[in-house]
Amino acid sequence: MTQRKLGRGVAMVGAGMSQFGVFPEKDTRDLFVEAFWAMRDSVDKDFDPHDIEALYIGNYSSELFEGQGHTAPIMADWVGLTPIAATRVEDACASSGVALRQGIMAVASGLHDVVLVGGIEKMNNLPIAEVTNALATAGDVLYEIPAGFTFPGFYAAMATAYMDRYGARPEALMKVGLKNHSNGALNPKAQFNMTIADVMLRKQASAEKKGRPIPHWDDEMAFLQDDRANPMIAWPLRLFDCSPVTDGATAVLLVSTDIAKNFTDDPINIIGSGQASDRALHGRSDLTSINAAKLAGQQAYDLAGVTVHDVKIAEVHDCFTIAEIIATEDLGFFSPGQGHEAVEEGLTARHGPHPINTSGGLKSKGHPVGASGTGQAVEIFTQMRGRASKRQVDRDVDIALTHNVGGTGQTAVVHIYQRD
Amino acid sequence: MTQRKLGRGVAMVGAGMSQFGVFPEKDTRDLFVEAFWAMRDSVDKDFDPHDIEALYIGNYSSELFEGQGHTAPIMADWVGLTPIAATRVEDACASSGVALRQGIMAVASGLHDVVLVGGIEKMNNLPIAEVTNALATAGDVLYEIPAGFTFPGFYAAMATAYMDRYGARPEALMKVGLKNHSNGALNPKAQFNMTIADVMLRKQASAEKKGRPIPHWDDEMAFLQDDRANPMIAWPLRLFDCSPVTDGATAVLLVSTDIAKNFTDDPINIIGSGQASDRALHGRSDLTSINAAKLAGQQAYDLAGVTVHDVKIAEVHDCFTIAEIIATEDLGFFSPGQGHEAVEEGLTARHGPHPINTSGGLKSKGHPVGASGTGQAVEIFTQMRGRASKRQVDRDVDIALTHNVGGTGQTAVVHIYQRD
Repeated sequence: MTQRKLGRGVAMVGAGMSQFGVFPEKDTRDLFVEAFWAMRDSVDKDFDPHDIEALYIGNYSSELFEGQGHTAPIMADWVGLTPIAATRVEDACASSGVALRQGIMAVASGLHDVVLVGGIEKMNNLPIAEVTNALATAGDVLYEIPAGFTFPGFYAAMATAYMDRYGARPEALMKVGLKNHSNGALNPKAQFNMTIADVMLRKQASAEKKGRPIPHWDDEMAFLQDDRANPMIAWPLRLFDCSPVTDGATAVLLVSTDIAKNFTDDPINIIGSGQASDRALHGRSDLTSINAAKLAGQQAYDLAGVTVHDVKIAEVHDCFTIAEIIATEDLGFFSPGQGHEAVEEGLTARHGPHPINTSGGLKSKGHPVGASGTGQAVEIFTQMRGRASKRQVDRDVDIALTHNVGGTGQTAVVHIYQRD
Repeated sequence: MTQRKLGRGVAMVGAGMSQFGVFPEKDTRDLFVEAFWAMRDSVDKDFDPHDIEALYIGNYSSELFEGQGHTAPIMADWVGLTPIAATRVEDACASSGVALRQGIMAVASGLHDVVLVGGIEKMNNLPIAEVTNALATAGDVLYEIPAGFTFPGFYAAMATAYMDRYGARPEALMKVGLKNHSNGALNPKAQFNMTIADVMLRKQASAEKKGRPIPHWDDEMAFLQDDRANPMIAWPLRLFDCSPVTDGATAVLLVSTDIAKNFTDDPINIIGSGQASDRALHGRSDLTSINAAKLAGQQAYDLAGVTVHDVKIAEVHDCFTIAEIIATEDLGFFSPGQGHEAVEEGLTARHGPHPINTSGGLKSKGHPVGASGTGQAVEIFTQMRGRASKRQVDRDVDIALTHNVGGTGQTAVVHIYQRD
């Protein structure tokens, strides 16, 4: 595949997200309005939303979750942007990462100067078994679903293959969860705005309140190893290895670099973008890495003219804990088989040498599937501009990266950001 | 809205479609393979499909129709294009028209030189009532569907408003069907590859075979006016005012103009593109035109630097007969209120001054909703290169247009083509 140059530069000048969580009283359009206002508030200078010329919406399946198709024009309407071009982009859980790429192309093509890219998903309308079924349609419904696979099963197969090849321990997976919850505890918009220790204390307090025996765990790791506290979902993945079912929306504002300073003195240029596809899981010979992510990463590095050594922080797709470990290898932060040791050693912690998922990741921040890709961009925008408050990393972030995966890796999309 | 210039030129160098119809034995992926091969056969010079760098798939709802999400990478896989970037674009029945626009941007942006744009829909898997429900999700499910609207009802409301304002007769609608079937009868890939007279003769032959009284109609118009032969669906729309439920796929190949001659000596440049959105139908003050189509058309004319007077043929979105009449006005072929007279006078016939829907249109060729936009481009490609066989128009087509609408007009996308 040839990777060429962008016709003109693209900058991110605004980014915001709704509260992530479970909102039975809200509809997708309500959540998108919330994200839109957060994005609007993040734009430093005077900004008239009517300057927005096109809207891209990443959404996995409002059809299945809400019975609503053709969502993009509705989102445009509800934030007052009718009659601009409004387009939905779908690539499963990579929907808004791919929408971001379309927004970049829309600006780089010369057709638009100001483009809004959003992500939406309202998943909690359905009973949990139906949510699992709806997500399973991101696999191959002819060949995989009849074999009984759902997403915890797919990623459990990847975890098993990884552990078998590299001798990783289940505790490495647990460390991913511990780390991401410790970051998410500092993110007020996270669905699980709490550490695993907080969860442990809540369980104890709840038992005490109900007059039941108060469970004791030596530490958070003991809590995660307890089958009652952290039940097995699909071996070796337990409950706290899985991202939650989330309602949420996100929005980022893209402009051509030549007008970026009209919006802010601190624009974030998007200098790399890569996207690749793969066969469904059943057609692959290796489950210990995601080839599409490797290719998308390489394309993004090539376009940006940087290497992984230049990347100061990254938001990667931790739909399951194993996915984060594999992602850090696919992107080159660690060699194949070294990712599990890296997390055990704390190398990916917020103040470690390679901070990964400072937002809390999908695991703690939440995973409204179609909104997660642009959600990653929101965190990068915030960290690079030094506005991440209590979870701000302790270094200068001039280069950063996002990595968003669809399904089991049939889609991957990577972006690289540079502070102007 | 500002409409700017494309960063570089984009040409269509291949285009093909599957047979349109009802195919219980086929899956979407089978139909897309068929369209891909037809596209491949249409490329005049040596062409290695591995030169394709990205795939855009227009699809309304494989989730609802087939229970399959994340379709784009599957389509890439089945035509041997893994691991290229594969992206689904959705804007209801405008999905592949909008996908075409994304393909154009992908080339114009400088990121890709060779892009495949496809459209797919496999609608006949569900019982017809469920198909109607699935399509209804392209309306507003909070405000319109609870009021009992489905798509024949939406377009019936538009037809009623139009007839009330302009005094149009139901026979004008019937004339659209007669014309489009007479074109579709010359299109071997059309779902209804027959004239209305053919349908009439079949009904008579069927009655004779069953030993029933043979019905008599004075002519095709009498047939269409007969409540038994052409039952009312939603007044004033009868069965033959509605496009059918279709399985089908389409594919077009886009390249940057500087390499177009490597693929063919007869490339078709895409010089205009416009897209706009609108509120759902219940929020509009006027049902006699589609504002998004007017805006998209104006953007496309402006970008192309041409006017409607330059356009020799057009494929417009005739999901219902009234939609074609409104389209010809929204695009400027006729003044508001004149479209119904134009079709009654034969001005839009294949050899009339303004040939519309020479392919048979959605009405006769078929309407696999997500595939229809690129299906229109297939006809334009074929006619502009003088390869439309029996239905070839009798004039030189240097400029042509496609007009694709999503839902009730919440999305419209218009493209303008020029022979190199």
